[in-house]
Amino acid sequence: MSTVSAHEVAAMRRALDLARRGPHHGPNPRVGCVLLGADGETIGEGWHRGAGTPHAEVAALADAAQRRTSTRGSTAVVTLEPCDHTGRTGPCTAALLAAGVARVVVAVTDPNPLAAGGAERLRNQGVQVVTDVLADEGRALLGAWLPAVERDRPFVTLKIAASLDGRVAASDGSSRWITGEMARRHAHELRGQVGAIVVGTGTALRDDPSLSARTASGELSAHQPLRVVVGHREVPAGARLRGPGGDLVQVRSHDPADVLAALVEREVRHVLVEGGPTLATAFLRAGLVDEVHAYVAPVLLGAGPTAIGDLGIAGIADALRLVPTSVQPLGPDVLVVAVPTPVPTPPHQEA
Amino acid sequence: MSTVSAHEVAAMRRALDLARRGPHHGPNPRVGCVLLGADGETIGEGWHRGAGTPHAEVAALADAAQRRTSTRGSTAVVTLEPCDHTGRTGPCTAALLAAGVARVVVAVTDPNPLAAGGAERLRNQGVQVVTDVLADEGRALLGAWLPAVERDRPFVTLKIAASLDGRVAASDGSSRWITGEMARRHAHELRGQVGAIVVGTGTALRDDPSLSARTASGELSAHQPLRVVVGHREVPAGARLRGPGGDLVQVRSHDPADVLAALVEREVRHVLVEGGPTLATAFLRAGLVDEVHAYVAPVLLGAGPTAIGDLGIAGIADALRLVPTSVQPLGPDVLVVAVPTPVPTPPHQEA
Ligand SMILES: NC(=O)c1ccc[n+]([C@@H]2O[C@H](COP(=O)([O-])OP(=O)(O)OC[C@H]3O[C@@H](n4cnc5c(N)ncnc54)[C@H](OP(=O)(O)O)[C@@H]3O)[C@@H](O)[C@H]2O)c1
Ligand SMILES: NC(=O)c1ccc[n+]([C@@H]2O[C@H](COP(=O)([O-])OP(=O)(O)OC[C@H]3O[C@@H](n4cnc5c(N)ncnc54)[C@H](OP(=O)(O)O)[C@@H]3O)[C@@H](O)[C@H]2O)c1
Repeated sequence: MSTVSAHEVAAMRRALDLARRGPHHGPNPRVGCVLLGADGETIGEGWHRGAGTPHAEVAALADAAQRRTSTRGSTAVVTLEPCDHTGRTGPCTAALLAAGVARVVVAVTDPNPLAAGGAERLRNQGVQVVTDVLADEGRALLGAWLPAVERDRPFVTLKIAASLDGRVAASDGSSRWITGEMARRHAHELRGQVGAIVVGTGTALRDDPSLSARTASGELSAHQPLRVVVGHREVPAGARLRGPGGDLVQVRSHDPADVLAALVEREVRHVLVEGGPTLATAFLRAGLVDEVHAYVAPVLLGAGPTAIGDLGIAGIADALRLVPTSVQPLGPDVLVVAVPTPVPTPPHQEA
Repeated sequence: MSTVSAHEVAAMRRALDLARRGPHHGPNPRVGCVLLGADGETIGEGWHRGAGTPHAEVAALADAAQRRTSTRGSTAVVTLEPCDHTGRTGPCTAALLAAGVARVVVAVTDPNPLAAGGAERLRNQGVQVVTDVLADEGRALLGAWLPAVERDRPFVTLKIAASLDGRVAASDGSSRWITGEMARRHAHELRGQVGAIVVGTGTALRDDPSLSARTASGELSAHQPLRVVVGHREVPAGARLRGPGGDLVQVRSHDPADVLAALVEREVRHVLVEGGPTLATAFLRAGLVDEVHAYVAPVLLGAGPTAIGDLGIAGIADALRLVPTSVQPLGPDVLVVAVPTPVPTPPHQEA
């Protein structure tokens, strides 16, 4: 059965909305679930509130139970394929089967090899399963989580805040502030949505940044990402990085892959690399940048470190070309969001 | 009398439209004129078609004569204050007085010390003169001409086409193409509107550019700006700069003021400085840039010449901050147009 009813599509939109109530930044995806009775009426709703709390399906079943409505023969409309494994909580497939759910409508199938297989398990138990309903919206909602799980490493956003002539600091190393307040506020919002912020020791020592996420009024946001410093030098005792904000992690290596490995261990799905140029260049050279957020300020400096160091590019034909996905003026500055051109995989390879 | 009728305001809008038919690039301003009869009806129209041709007022009087309509007691509505001097043509004040025009409505008063004084001359001869009607529109229409005349030197637009990391060429010097087709086409349109394009010998020798203005289909535009090369080295005999396009002028100096002086002599009002970095930096250091057109491409190069060289700026507080006047996506690229922050003149100076 691959047809879905109008009720079910409407329920999927609702499930997507419910999912949005969950947190952006945790190890788990944002998921929403709506349970429909035989006449298409809603009998339960749930969403995932973050790692360690019930999955959306289980929350929706609990909601139905609280309403004292039977779920036998019901349809579960859920934004992500129900999991089939026991993590911090039990498998959702088992909960759905136990509740007598007869049909499951899914937006996005789970690429996580650990959690996947839910649809198959349900089908084997006689449940009707339809997938790919509003799949694009579902993928957009999952954001960095989906590619992170697909690639088995955090999704990497590289942030650059540069002058029109590509400088990220003046020749004396000062860089506060190249961009204006709106751009900085925008950058803080992103901080509040990622699992970790990464800088090199050069930036940590030169700028003494706090790397905390703050609200528009300057207060610490509820969620604070991990603060990661990459390099061998010590972060001094009095550094702001040791003050209010997320946990401080130092990765004593120069290899971006080591940084990501350390973050995989901590279940970080989305990393914001904030520079400086040495670290940014290392991530680019390693092919470990998934997205660039370039804040370009209408400022000329004429000297000072450039945003990106040597990439081994000699001629213009070898330039690292990005595909912009959005261009957004922010006060006097412009934010260009762009993704690296995917290296085309050869369609056919001979031995 | 400073009140104007609705007829007159409408006639001024028409005069502005007529003015737009004139050429952007010549030494003379674009001007339009509408003659109104006693009942506010249009009895003549004219615009200036470029240096050596009749001024707008004279063209409008000729139009009225051709319609065999008397101009005695009429009102001339004109976008720029009528001139009072004899240049390539006689003074417009004399023509208006001879035609018996009783009232003159003006958008912008002429800052040109040579041509100014027209309003006063007319008033002295008993003509009613009202100025500053739709003055903002009038100034916008005049574009670079107005500041050029006010500053007694060409208005200077600095064009930069750079990667996100501020490079204008790769490390081997190649720079074709950093920006995409839409940006290049846009840049060609501007070439068609300026009096001269300026590059340093470094760019002339490295890139062998033609510096011609071309239409979307790749043909030479009707107007070709002067091509100016700055520096001591010789432009080789076979260079494209010696091929189809505007006249080639070499300024054998490193001083931007010498470049502008040479162009004042040739009555150039608007100059487009297209680089390279050495020349761009010299113009910025001399304070001789009035506007920056920065085409930013979503490209990373990591090495190669940066858009701007040393400006003598040490700390971020001394950065050359620009005020953006527009941000425009052009295909994958973004055009940021910005003007230098005016240095505030001290309100009061003691000896
Ligand atoms: N505008 C902006 O957005 C922005 C953002 C950040 C920084 N900045 C500016 O950038 C400047 C600092 O630049 P930076 O390049 O020195 O900073 P950085 O990239 O933060 O730190 C470089 C240091 O990190 C360590 N490191 C980590 N990975 C490395 C690798 N793959 N290769 C080599 N070293 C690696 C090395 O130190 P160890 O010897 O300790 O291992 C190295 O010296 C400051 O002026 C700062 O203000 C600007
Ligand atoms: N992306 C773009 O928009 C763009 C535009 C233009 C150029 N480029 C790239 O820029 C590179 C060329 O850079 P460049 O800086 O050498 O070019 P440049 O500024 O065009 O030329 C520099 C030369 O001009 C002369 N010069 C004129 N005024 C000077 C001054 N005030 N101070 C010192 N010298 C002065 C000197 O030569 P003499 O010894 O002859 O006097 C100097 O070597 C090329 O790779 C080109 O592709 C890119």
